[in-house]
Amino acid sequence: MTRYKAVIAYDGTDFSGFQIQNNQRTVQEEIEKILTKVNSHQPVILQGAGRTDSGVHACGQVIHFDLDENTNEERLRFALDTQTPSDIAVYSVGQVSDDFHARFTKHEKTYEYYLDNAQIRSPFKRLHQAWFRYNLDIEVMTQAIEKLVGEHDFTGFTASGSSVDDKVRTIYQAKLEKIDDTTLKFTFSGNGFLYKQIRNMVGTLIKIGNGKFSLSRMDEILETKDRKLAGPTAHPEGLYLKEVRYLED
Amino acid sequence: MTRYKAVIAYDGTDFSGFQIQNNQRTVQEEIEKILTKVNSHQPVILQGAGRTDSGVHACGQVIHFDLDENTNEERLRFALDTQTPSDIAVYSVGQVSDDFHARFTKHEKTYEYYLDNAQIRSPFKRLHQAWFRYNLDIEVMTQAIEKLVGEHDFTGFTASGSSVDDKVRTIYQAKLEKIDDTTLKFTFSGNGFLYKQIRNMVGTLIKIGNGKFSLSRMDEILETKDRKLAGPTAHPEGLYLKEVRYLED
Repeated sequence: MTRYKAVIAYDGTDFSGFQIQNNQRTVQEEIEKILTKVNSHQPVILQGAGRTDSGVHACGQVIHFDLDENTNEERLRFALDTQTPSDIAVYSVGQVSDDFHARFTKHEKTYEYYLDNAQIRSPFKRLHQAWFRYNLDIEVMTQAIEKLVGEHDFTGFTASGSSVDDKVRTIYQAKLEKIDDTTLKFTFSGNGFLYKQIRNMVGTLIKIGNGKFSLSRMDEILETKDRKLAGPTAHPEGLYLKEVRYLED
Repeated sequence: MTRYKAVIAYDGTDFSGFQIQNNQRTVQEEIEKILTKVNSHQPVILQGAGRTDSGVHACGQVIHFDLDENTNEERLRFALDTQTPSDIAVYSVGQVSDDFHARFTKHEKTYEYYLDNAQIRSPFKRLHQAWFRYNLDIEVMTQAIEKLVGEHDFTGFTASGSSVDDKVRTIYQAKLEKIDDTTLKFTFSGNGFLYKQIRNMVGTLIKIGNGKFSLSRMDEILETKDRKLAGPTAHPEGLYLKEVRYLED
């Protein structure tokens, strides 16, 4: 048995998320189908670093899986890249030690969120950026996003009914950039994120930028942990799992 | 009766081209449905400057149509933009004189073609750029594309069975740029283009860049007008109708 780690990308538009589900098209199932073929038709189960939701994209998702035989890494990468559908790409494949686990080995994740703030929605961005046509105050949003940096209990930003007990996480970097006339890019790096946390943080930042919430709302949500104070969950098409960095790398 | 001109954009991915066809989803039909509603349910037929093929995109297609009543331009633009599906955008609407015709009023058109020359195909570009993974010699392609500028009989680059008699057209500008590490952008401006002409020119340029055809092949095609000497028709997803400039504007 040999364990492999792979870095993959996918366009989330036509997937019901990363994780396998009955009667749904998922990234995990599409890749496992090819891995099982490669593994002389013995079933292979893969593990991903993050379980992205329906419609959410990834440029640098990491997966691991075990194959019965030792295989040439580039040949395996090429087989996975070309035999999976065109909305999945496989950028690299490498052998790792048997105790590596894409999800449980300590890591930092970076997510990016792209928001098109144009008056008229571009047909070419509609699947790959969220859209908000009203005015946004970038300066106040920048002040608000900086409040998220550090160790906090993010209960107020997760979906109700989340099964995780410990909702304390650390955000190392949270920044907002205007990358062209109409596009905003949010970047979040941290040691882990709760279910829908990033989309709820972005939804709140949009409300603050549009003047519907005051800047102090961000502090209130962190202090009270009250989900009802946060903004609506921002649309999935703006979100990308950009990078997973394992600390031993 | 009032005549209107509109500038529109569409993502060609899910359309069977611009022009209306039975039992196919077309740009023309989607817009005419809304125009007819706006026109108190009296049928409206629109005319487009160019008939883009299935899968081909537009950022600056121009259409014209007549409405029975004089309507506020921005209200009409907003209605068309928001009531058409999200893969169509309507950027501007303005009244024009009754003798303006999107197709027959004298104009210049600019098309752009985007080619992703990365080793691994990006899931995010697959619908909006063509992909060619093998090596391309940009310098020889630049020499080849310059041979297309000027007045030529482009019979060798049109689809066989084209019904147009006069195949002489003038190309004012034909250029190739590398816009980032892996992306090539071809730009063509001219007084008109034949059916599949641009995609056949690009297909030929790719063969020249990849060393399958010599540079002189471009001259031979223009001289002999032999379609069999040209390269294959390049894929539609790389092509954009970028701009239509009417000479009286």
